Amino acid sequence: MSWIIHATKPIDTQAVAAAQARQQQLTKPAGSLGQLEQLAIRLAGMQGKACPQLQRISIAVFAADHGVAVEGVSAYPQAVTAEMIRNFSRGGAAISVAARVLEAELRVWNLGTVVELEPLPAVESRVIAAQSGNLLHEPAMTAVQLQQALAAGREAVLHTPAELFIGGEMGIGNTTAATALAAALLEKPVAELVGPGTGLDSMGMSHKCRIIEQALLRHGRNNGDTQEPMALLASLGGFEIAALTGAYVACAQEGLAALVDGFICTVAALLACRINPAVADWLIFSHHSAEPGYRHLRPALPSPPLLDLGLRLGEGSGAAAAVPLLRMSCELHAGMATFAEAAVSEKPS
Amino acid sequence: MSWIIHATKPIDTQAVAAAQARQQQLTKPAGSLGQLEQLAIRLAGMQGKACPQLQRISIAVFAADHGVAVEGVSAYPQAVTAEMIRNFSRGGAAISVAARVLEAELRVWNLGTVVELEPLPAVESRVIAAQSGNLLHEPAMTAVQLQQALAAGREAVLHTPAELFIGGEMGIGNTTAATALAAALLEKPVAELVGPGTGLDSMGMSHKCRIIEQALLRHGRNNGDTQEPMALLASLGGFEIAALTGAYVACAQEGLAALVDGFICTVAALLACRINPAVADWLIFSHHSAEPGYRHLRPALPSPPLLDLGLRLGEGSGAAAAVPLLRMSCELHAGMATFAEAAVSEKPS
Repeated sequence: MSWIIHATKPIDTQAVAAAQARQQQLTKPAGSLGQLEQLAIRLAGMQGKACPQLQRISIAVFAADHGVAVEGVSAYPQAVTAEMIRNFSRGGAAISVAARVLEAELRVWNLGTVVELEPLPAVESRVIAAQSGNLLHEPAMTAVQLQQALAAGREAVLHTPAELFIGGEMGIGNTTAATALAAALLEKPVAELVGPGTGLDSMGMSHKCRIIEQALLRHGRNNGDTQEPMALLASLGGFEIAALTGAYVACAQEGLAALVDGFICTVAALLACRINPAVADWLIFSHHSAEPGYRHLRPALPSPPLLDLGLRLGEGSGAAAAVPLLRMSCELHAGMATFAEAAVSEKPS
Repeated sequence: MSWIIHATKPIDTQAVAAAQARQQQLTKPAGSLGQLEQLAIRLAGMQGKACPQLQRISIAVFAADHGVAVEGVSAYPQAVTAEMIRNFSRGGAAISVAARVLEAELRVWNLGTVVELEPLPAVESRVIAAQSGNLLHEPAMTAVQLQQALAAGREAVLHTPAELFIGGEMGIGNTTAATALAAALLEKPVAELVGPGTGLDSMGMSHKCRIIEQALLRHGRNNGDTQEPMALLASLGGFEIAALTGAYVACAQEGLAALVDGFICTVAALLACRINPAVADWLIFSHHSAEPGYRHLRPALPSPPLLDLGLRLGEGSGAAAAVPLLRMSCELHAGMATFAEAAVSEKPS
């Protein structure tokens, strides 16, 4: 097998211990900053220093079309995938605005759209095919296409030096693929996982549910078959979902913290952990998505998500919204005075 | 009665409608930014413009000592109140660091400490008394002291022009006062509300619970008496808690959004709403505090808190942590392209 199962970088346990010791000395009751303390400690372990920093943030949005869109599983026409890539490039999308606010670098990785795209600023063309295979009738990807998609994710991670990586996704039909993957991974009924995606009504959701159930039968994923993650990705995934999986694995191998967005990204992250379990150490989950399937993913996460604000846009937007919390945790950790420095009385033991 | 029952500024419903209409046109599925959409719409109504801004943020930390501290209800010595005021002033406390990160103005309002304080930068001295009365044996405040504390809160709001007000608190013993107020307001048993505050062990918490129960009996608040909020504040509150109540009322009267911190601030905010119900329109609740009593306050809140990160420090630190979400909501609202501007296909109706 390829790079994807190579070892990940170990967490620096000395830096973790140093950060934990520092947190005990800061002028506040121990533990009173809750997850803001834990985030600084985790980032210390990832960055290998007692006081981690988050200046440089790299956002990679992976975009691709889905063959299953022809089945009428989305509220929006398939042309929107390409149209939104132009919108990302011109700075009009939510993730574009968020990247400016965060002073993060935003790059779009176009893995294939039905509407062919002209060269665009900040868009890298890595077209695998115009769209993935229709998972209702065929595998979403060949083995070669899967390797191309995983490699595109790794390329995006290596492309931009950063202290934090955010992956995002755009692809009409991709909650269908992600829900199929989640049902297979979690061995849960599709009806419990399926959601409105970009905005299906209840009739649309029932149709989407039936399409996913048929796809799972078609690919033998409802019958207790082996849940081998690479095979699942190839049969039920999409180019951008596989790229996200590759990106998360690459982050862990390169020693880069990855902030995971919502439902689709979290499915990709769980697949990355199934492929290479130590990837979990490098993942920070940003938010509890409003897409209904997320609540079933949550018990499988190695750490709880930070936000729960009813977000379900994708693009990496929920992860971007959580970045200031990570930055605040680092600033508090580095910038607060210790009890000794401030001459504040400690809790009597 | 005084200014405290004067009318609050009405929310601008035209600006709300304009903001709602704008959200429908932005390049994302309607509703997919969840609470980030709702925050921008609420702030539009408060600021009276379709695209609200949050540049200028004023943080006022109200500090005061509590007579009840002599009963051994805190894990820390009472001198810490004054020591932390020095730490705020020198920039070493959590709220000091957060204010720098947010480029917010931080000012401390010293309402009275047992350890007398020298003049300090960014600290306003409005000493009412060295400490409040010990609520176990006497009212925490006289009627005159209550008016002074409420007025100090209003003065803090009027002091600094801003687009968002954050109140914070510091006072050894103040979770005891706030828990007593919460028990009286919510008519809940103290044992369900009491928590560790700065870090009591279980024996300390049992003792704190008994002190609060005795105080409620002493003040006739366990016997179905009228729950008149001003009387509650005077008998069971503290100078900084009353100042917060006054500040929230003043925000609503002045037309300034107030971002409410954790357990103690939320008790003060609920008292403000009891005194002057339309204050609720101007409050944004920042986080679900880890102090156990908060979960009982939550059903009484007019809107849900934004964060739930296990924070229980106070000082306004949890509200500060939520500011970037409010700013992101405004930036997304103003900065995203519309479907027409970006030539993105809309959802077919």
